[in-house]
Amino acid sequence: MRVLITGVDGYLGWTLSIHLAARGHEVAGIDHYGRRAWVGEMGSQSAIPIAPMAERLSAYRERLDQNLRFFKGDLCDYDFVLDAYRAFRPEAIVYLGEMPSAPYSMRDVHTAIYTQSNNVLGTLVTLHAMREAVPECHLVKLGTMGEYGTPNVDIPEGWFELEYRGRKERMLFPRRAGSWYHQSKVHDSHNVEMACRLWNLRSTDIMQGVVYGTKIDEQEGHPLLATRFDFDQAFGTAINRFCAQAVIGMPLTPYGKGHQKRGFLPLRDSMQCLALAVENPPEAGDYRVFNQFEDVYDVMQLAERVQRIGNEFELGVKIQPMENPRSEAEQHYYNPDREHLLELGYRPTRDMDSELRSVFADLIPQRRRIEERREAQFPDIRWDGTRRRSRSLNR
Amino acid sequence: MRVLITGVDGYLGWTLSIHLAARGHEVAGIDHYGRRAWVGEMGSQSAIPIAPMAERLSAYRERLDQNLRFFKGDLCDYDFVLDAYRAFRPEAIVYLGEMPSAPYSMRDVHTAIYTQSNNVLGTLVTLHAMREAVPECHLVKLGTMGEYGTPNVDIPEGWFELEYRGRKERMLFPRRAGSWYHQSKVHDSHNVEMACRLWNLRSTDIMQGVVYGTKIDEQEGHPLLATRFDFDQAFGTAINRFCAQAVIGMPLTPYGKGHQKRGFLPLRDSMQCLALAVENPPEAGDYRVFNQFEDVYDVMQLAERVQRIGNEFELGVKIQPMENPRSEAEQHYYNPDREHLLELGYRPTRDMDSELRSVFADLIPQRRRIEERREAQFPDIRWDGTRRRSRSLNR
Repeated sequence: MRVLITGVDGYLGWTLSIHLAARGHEVAGIDHYGRRAWVGEMGSQSAIPIAPMAERLSAYRERLDQNLRFFKGDLCDYDFVLDAYRAFRPEAIVYLGEMPSAPYSMRDVHTAIYTQSNNVLGTLVTLHAMREAVPECHLVKLGTMGEYGTPNVDIPEGWFELEYRGRKERMLFPRRAGSWYHQSKVHDSHNVEMACRLWNLRSTDIMQGVVYGTKIDEQEGHPLLATRFDFDQAFGTAINRFCAQAVIGMPLTPYGKGHQKRGFLPLRDSMQCLALAVENPPEAGDYRVFNQFEDVYDVMQLAERVQRIGNEFELGVKIQPMENPRSEAEQHYYNPDREHLLELGYRPTRDMDSELRSVFADLIPQRRRIEERREAQFPDIRWDGTRRRSRSLNR
Repeated sequence: MRVLITGVDGYLGWTLSIHLAARGHEVAGIDHYGRRAWVGEMGSQSAIPIAPMAERLSAYRERLDQNLRFFKGDLCDYDFVLDAYRAFRPEAIVYLGEMPSAPYSMRDVHTAIYTQSNNVLGTLVTLHAMREAVPECHLVKLGTMGEYGTPNVDIPEGWFELEYRGRKERMLFPRRAGSWYHQSKVHDSHNVEMACRLWNLRSTDIMQGVVYGTKIDEQEGHPLLATRFDFDQAFGTAINRFCAQAVIGMPLTPYGKGHQKRGFLPLRDSMQCLALAVENPPEAGDYRVFNQFEDVYDVMQLAERVQRIGNEFELGVKIQPMENPRSEAEQHYYNPDREHLLELGYRPTRDMDSELRSVFADLIPQRRRIEERREAQFPDIRWDGTRRRSRSLNR
């Protein structure tokens, strides 16, 4: 299948381009190196060194024996996007080309505007370009479990049957996001659903949990096939950030009480799920939603898990909770469904410990790169709009 | 109270500036004359002549004995908006500064992007500027009943108690909008709710029905205090468009079967409701939603009503339904609540006939201006992305 990945230079995008090629798909990608720039803005860099795209593409060709057809440009530029779709004629588009950080979006008015502009308008451009050039194409759109927030009720997969005052209707489940970034994904979901309803497009909207891990098997340990690994306060996800902290001897810093519950999944399972979505498209006009995560953990449990595995590497890991810079519930009900991907054949890895060992094995050789950008790990972007470094809390 | 109106040069904004001044409020306004430009782009003009802002402001001062403090600029420009808020220190902001047309937003990819960019980012700028400069200020935000679409269940006012699998939660009622414009309002609602929740701002989000009418009493028939009246396919609302068609001897053109039901209210009642919202602010942190309309009608009933009143003016009015350029349900359940404004003291006018007589009295002298832009009334912007003039249908 011809699959186009937007955001192909990013953490998930690059890995997916390799995973899909290994599964026999023809892959193209779009990027404008936004992720490199945003992480740089945060005063950080990828712990794992990332070569320029030209070198990545050469290695891709050499190791995977096919070209990754790469288009460099901005997803908000309609003419560019339309041209790329017309040239490659994708059968599926995996849309990973969004600014993915909640703290970055909460930094100031300018990053808030940038986030919603880049994400919402980019998706809107893609819907129009699909209608124009590839109306049969399947849009696999990356959303986030954070769209739902943490309501005091179960969370279905996108849709539910609402019973209200004695009548019934199939409706989108209400969203309650907690950052401008998460809201941008809520807006995307509404826009994409409407495009399927009005224009007969087809889409799978992926409400993804928090991803962790450094690699998948198909990268074969080749440094030019490696994907990035961020550990700064904005672009590092929780488990990845904890691992990087452990490697440089910093205490792990869960926020607040640490009883925030989230769904998590390893990078390799994210790839497995996205490939399943690509290879099993919905009917024309169908907007379906997958909740994509493996298990629900609270953040303190994860810190303890990282501590235990880190200590196998004699890192002497400590946990030191920090004042929560976010506004979020720290004790809450959380029970999201996740049936759709299992029905398609998803087999969760279910072995976090060996995944964490693999992360440590990859990160320890990069200790110096993490040390160099040590300051970038301290959270100082606060949800109330102020900028102040979080204090340590007693555990 | 110091009230700032964004979009003060528009149909509702200008009228509200007069209504609030007459009620003793101090009024400021922001505009960049977008409405004039968009209507011009559609090949049309206001049926009622509108003077340049400088002349409007002079007349305002003369007749109402107070200044309207006017700031000319773009609501997406943070520095400009922040500066205006700091200068005027509004206690309430009535946010009418959005691109208000569904057909315009569906015209092409560029107007779709413009609509969501102007509306969503402008609101986002305002939320940030409020937090920075006037955190106690009350945001009266104009949404639309179209955010909800036409679900097969009752429509509460914004919030509802969801019962789901034996648990309960107060949540936003699910939205299902039918155009990029309506979606922009859905996105606004989500953004504004979050700003109230995270930043303790306060807002009333007005889900307004379709407004009709040419004037309010406080304009005293003064031509420089008059508000605009659009009749083109994009910016003319249904009843207003029917009245303009009747005046130039064109048949009234309800779309499709004409059994689309919507909530309607006259301009004077829209003013009454907005003033009630302004004068009764919610608590800090509160995001409340008002469904603002008078009665629900189906579009064919309204055409027949306009026909009857138009014939009192010997206009020989005919009705000739047209192919529906939109994708929308033409037969559907529709039962929205509207209690909140009644509880605050809203007294509906409830006399559509005399309102329509007043519209005809104002429009008949402008027959030539409507004739000049006759072509602008024929719908050719289609929801499927094509551009083709709707055909007439047998009734």
